[in-house]
Amino acid sequence: MQFEISSIATVFNDRKAITDDFWGDVISEIKLTDNIPAEAFDGIEEFSHAEIIYVFDKAVNGKVVVGSEHPRENKAWPKVGIFAQRKKNRPNFLGATICKIVKRDGRSLFVQMLDAIDGTPVVDIKPVMKEFLPALPVTQPGWSNELMKDYWK
Amino acid sequence: MQFEISSIATVFNDRKAITDDFWGDVISEIKLTDNIPAEAFDGIEEFSHAEIIYVFDKAVNGKVVVGSEHPRENKAWPKVGIFAQRKKNRPNFLGATICKIVKRDGRSLFVQMLDAIDGTPVVDIKPVMKEFLPALPVTQPGWSNELMKDYWK
Repeated sequence: MQFEISSIATVFNDRKAITDDFWGDVISEIKLTDNIPAEAFDGIEEFSHAEIIYVFDKAVNGKVVVGSEHPRENKAWPKVGIFAQRKKNRPNFLGATICKIVKRDGRSLFVQMLDAIDGTPVVDIKPVMKEFLPALPVTQPGWSNELMKDYWK
Repeated sequence: MQFEISSIATVFNDRKAITDDFWGDVISEIKLTDNIPAEAFDGIEEFSHAEIIYVFDKAVNGKVVVGSEHPRENKAWPKVGIFAQRKKNRPNFLGATICKIVKRDGRSLFVQMLDAIDGTPVVDIKPVMKEFLPALPVTQPGWSNELMKDYWK
């Protein structure tokens, strides 16, 4: 099944280049597109976190390997399929990241810990509720902790 | 900006009707579409949780109010904009839910706590890493806790 989606907002920040790490201090302004009223953000400031769903638009039309590959081409890590990784070259090129809400200002939402570069199109924003976070402890393979070592620095 | 996305998998479960609550015990099989190799799931069983991004396809072409409305039309709760709610009638009709991985079996991933009905098209699956969960405590308005009271029962 195919669906057409449209950006509802755009990311503005000082990250112009596509790089893997050091996203922790980036503050991003997420500004609604002209066709969405500011009211769409009403009440969002009552939440501490929001999940931002965006499109890796610079990767669209790029190569996607869905079969097993070493994350970041690091042979010290096991080969895993695309749905056991979070990299951008994936079917549908969607990113989804839970961010800290800094403030809402009219048509803009300011967030911290969004790993998307300047100009990235946003396709949805969802408030984070505790009830949607894992109730049981999260476990994951060691390679993923190694990969994330400098991600939020 | 517009993008075309395609389902990469389909949900199979015993929830045929669209209802708000009682999703906790639902076990869903997420089966890859024919064009995606089973290998796309390799390594996913090393993770305890996965985020499922799906399309509320039954709601597509339905009415979307992006401005302020009472969640579930409950006037006891404040009016909030579409991005301060998680309801299905939203721009782009995307759902995103973190689920417990039950098992992977070839081309299928079995998960618990997916709030999507039978036949729902899935557009992405991401492994959940602790590093992508909120580092700071999550706070949210009281109405959202009330709304979620029976959601996972």
